[in-house]
Amino acid sequence: MSTVPLPADAEADPRVKAVFDDIRATRKTDHVNNLWRALAFDPALLEQTWADVKRLMAAPTLLDPLTKEMVYIAVSIANACSYCVHSHTAAAKVKGMTAAQHAELLSIVALAAKTNQLVTALQVPVDPAFDAARAA
Amino acid sequence: MSTVPLPADAEADPRVKAVFDDIRATRKTDHVNNLWRALAFDPALLEQTWADVKRLMAAPTLLDPLTKEMVYIAVSIANACSYCVHSHTAAAKVKGMTAAQHAELLSIVALAAKTNQLVTALQVPVDPAFDAARAA
Amino acid sequence: MSTVPLPADAEADPRVKAVFDDIRATRKTDHVNNLWRALAFDPALLEQTWADVKRLMAAPTLLDPLTKEMVYIAVSIANACSYCVHSHTAAAKVKGMTAAQHAELLSIVALAAKTNQLVTALQVPVDPAFDAARAA
Amino acid sequence: MSTVPLPADAEADPRVKAVFDDIRATRKTDHVNNLWRALAFDPALLEQTWADVKRLMAAPTLLDPLTKEMVYIAVSIANACSYCVHSHTAAAKVKGMTAAQHAELLSIVALAAKTNQLVTALQVPVDPAFDAARAA
Amino acid sequence: MSTVPLPADAEADPRVKAVFDDIRATRKTDHVNNLWRALAFDPALLEQTWADVKRLMAAPTLLDPLTKEMVYIAVSIANACSYCVHSHTAAAKVKGMTAAQHAELLSIVALAAKTNQLVTALQVPVDPAFDAARAA
Amino acid sequence: MSTVPLPADAEADPRVKAVFDDIRATRKTDHVNNLWRALAFDPALLEQTWADVKRLMAAPTLLDPLTKEMVYIAVSIANACSYCVHSHTAAAKVKGMTAAQHAELLSIVALAAKTNQLVTALQVPVDPAFDAARAA
Repeated sequence: MSTVPLPADAEADPRVKAVFDDIRATRKTDHVNNLWRALAFDPALLEQTWADVKRLMAAPTLLDPLTKEMVYIAVSIANACSYCVHSHTAAAKVKGMTAAQHAELLSIVALAAKTNQLVTALQVPVDPAFDAARAA
Repeated sequence: MSTVPLPADAEADPRVKAVFDDIRATRKTDHVNNLWRALAFDPALLEQTWADVKRLMAAPTLLDPLTKEMVYIAVSIANACSYCVHSHTAAAKVKGMTAAQHAELLSIVALAAKTNQLVTALQVPVDPAFDAARAA
Repeated sequence: MSTVPLPADAEADPRVKAVFDDIRATRKTDHVNNLWRALAFDPALLEQTWADVKRLMAAPTLLDPLTKEMVYIAVSIANACSYCVHSHTAAAKVKGMTAAQHAELLSIVALAAKTNQLVTALQVPVDPAFDAARAA
Repeated sequence: MSTVPLPADAEADPRVKAVFDDIRATRKTDHVNNLWRALAFDPALLEQTWADVKRLMAAPTLLDPLTKEMVYIAVSIANACSYCVHSHTAAAKVKGMTAAQHAELLSIVALAAKTNQLVTALQVPVDPAFDAARAA
Repeated sequence: MSTVPLPADAEADPRVKAVFDDIRATRKTDHVNNLWRALAFDPALLEQTWADVKRLMAAPTLLDPLTKEMVYIAVSIANACSYCVHSHTAAAKVKGMTAAQHAELLSIVALAAKTNQLVTALQVPVDPAFDAARAA
Repeated sequence: MSTVPLPADAEADPRVKAVFDDIRATRKTDHVNNLWRALAFDPALLEQTWADVKRLMAAPTLLDPLTKEMVYIAVSIANACSYCVHSHTAAAKVKGMTAAQHAELLSIVALAAKTNQLVTALQVPVDPAFDAARAA
């Protein structure tokens, strides 16, 4: 199911084909996953979203690729995005995440969620020492 | 403000004092931040929460300390926990996070939140290739 | 699957039948979708929920019907409610939402989610100019 | 701060005064808390919201008053609603919640948030045994 | 689907078998549900998670078992955890939750979510009367 | 407070000054609100974020400006972003949102949040009629 059509011939549109070709070349795989096929219902949205993802997640940046995937997974879990958890966990494994690293990542996400709730429940005032604007 | 008392003499309780002393020793600082002062309203909850945080965040584990803080920040942002964002951003800076790394972390969190929404909006079916249970 | 029974003969209960008949008449369709069939496990909850939805979403109000559906979709995405995203996207299409409008709606929801995360990450103080209570 | 005016003379409107008087009588207090003062910017919204809260939270129902407040607190924490956490924690204390009960409530909310994240991270398939629709 | 393997022979690992046996004995059932089977990919995470759940949810504590399950359901709904809603609703029914209690629980969760949104929309300042730190 | 410095002389950096000038020109105001001042800690992030917001929210697009602001407010409420709710409610009022429209917007957001919770609680299966992929 989906809220937009998932046409088999999406690449008949040259703008869609260009993005799909770039995904295949960038990721060195023939598999264009369903998110991109769904986004193809609007070529401009497809182009912009892929450009954002490619720039930050597929190109070398300050943070190493696996750290970036782990942060992405953490956010996707917190936002309860089933598809995103699946796709980024698979991507992290491709980038070398071991089962032990996966387990530790989950432990941290779960601990953070737990203490997030405690803090919100207690409505703790922020310590002045944490304020980065003080010295500005 | 807070939903529990924040008594100045919380350490009159020896269980609270033991945890606060361990926080000071472990973190090599005199500052016991407000979360722990608030949790002191229930010494058992204080002890368990500190034990969890100490084991995963203060002791050496598989992931490096800065990566762990960045994951913690990411989850705290997604859960809209103001205090947690403040405290863990401060902690990450102590552990060496530069302004450029901070900016890249925020870019990834923001990108993940953005694509999380797109995926949820499109209700994209999960690609069978992502299923880790297949080969089990 | 569901957490309550979905009996085929829910309309044997006259209170349920009255609501289902009103849904059919109001929406000019024979299709009573699964949400209402599930809510029928408690006729009072069914009646109250339909009354709320009918008053705000099915009757003419200040905002036009398509704007209301788009707001509803936006909230449902942010709350990660799969069923709600499906049902309200379908409803918005019935009310005339084009693919281009759909894409723009998703772009705005995604942008809002992105800047929401940035703002929460930065813990920006609210500008006094935004305070509506000042002039009261 | 607030996004709507908080006029001191809100009760000059008889519809607002009627709701405020009912809040005072129902709760046996002179204090009309800020939520209601803010909602007074739209008397119809004020009336409907108070009617909902009064029916479910102020009148006797199946669940006991303290259990209802604890559920309300739990949801408010999960939704990161600062004001709601404050107001319902205060209400629960008025209804007899002890510090030990408060601590246990927070422990359960925190545990649920933790396991919610683990489950979402693992994308565990639902056991058929949990399906209530089977026997329908 | 899942993001970790769900091997049929998970209990070949004695640490996993010990936890599964304790789950069966504690819950007086042969059914070890999928969450635990998925967590078995990391025996330490499995042991810690079950220890937390057993201590708080399976052992007698201050709050009665059904209240605890209802709070757990409420949090799981707010966090949009499909599996958790299924498993804890089933558990609550085993502990005696009637359809009428279920309906009232959902009414409270829905009302809380509704007023949470209104309060967040209005950005209502917290009443000083709600501050528990004042008297400390 | 904030997690990054808010220097008074941010515009000493020509990239920051260029963005601030464009914000002032685009919005026809001298007021550059705090979000942009905070984002200035990383000029690239500032430039990209403003480019996204300007393209979608400040330029003419398919949806009318007020509808866009209302969708933005709805998402910001659901994500519990205090600053965002303040800034976009103020922006919507500048674009003509009346108190009555504001109240109706909040009613819809609150109703959506309420039914989102009910649907998640019931785990209602999606009706096949809602599937947009069928006809693809």
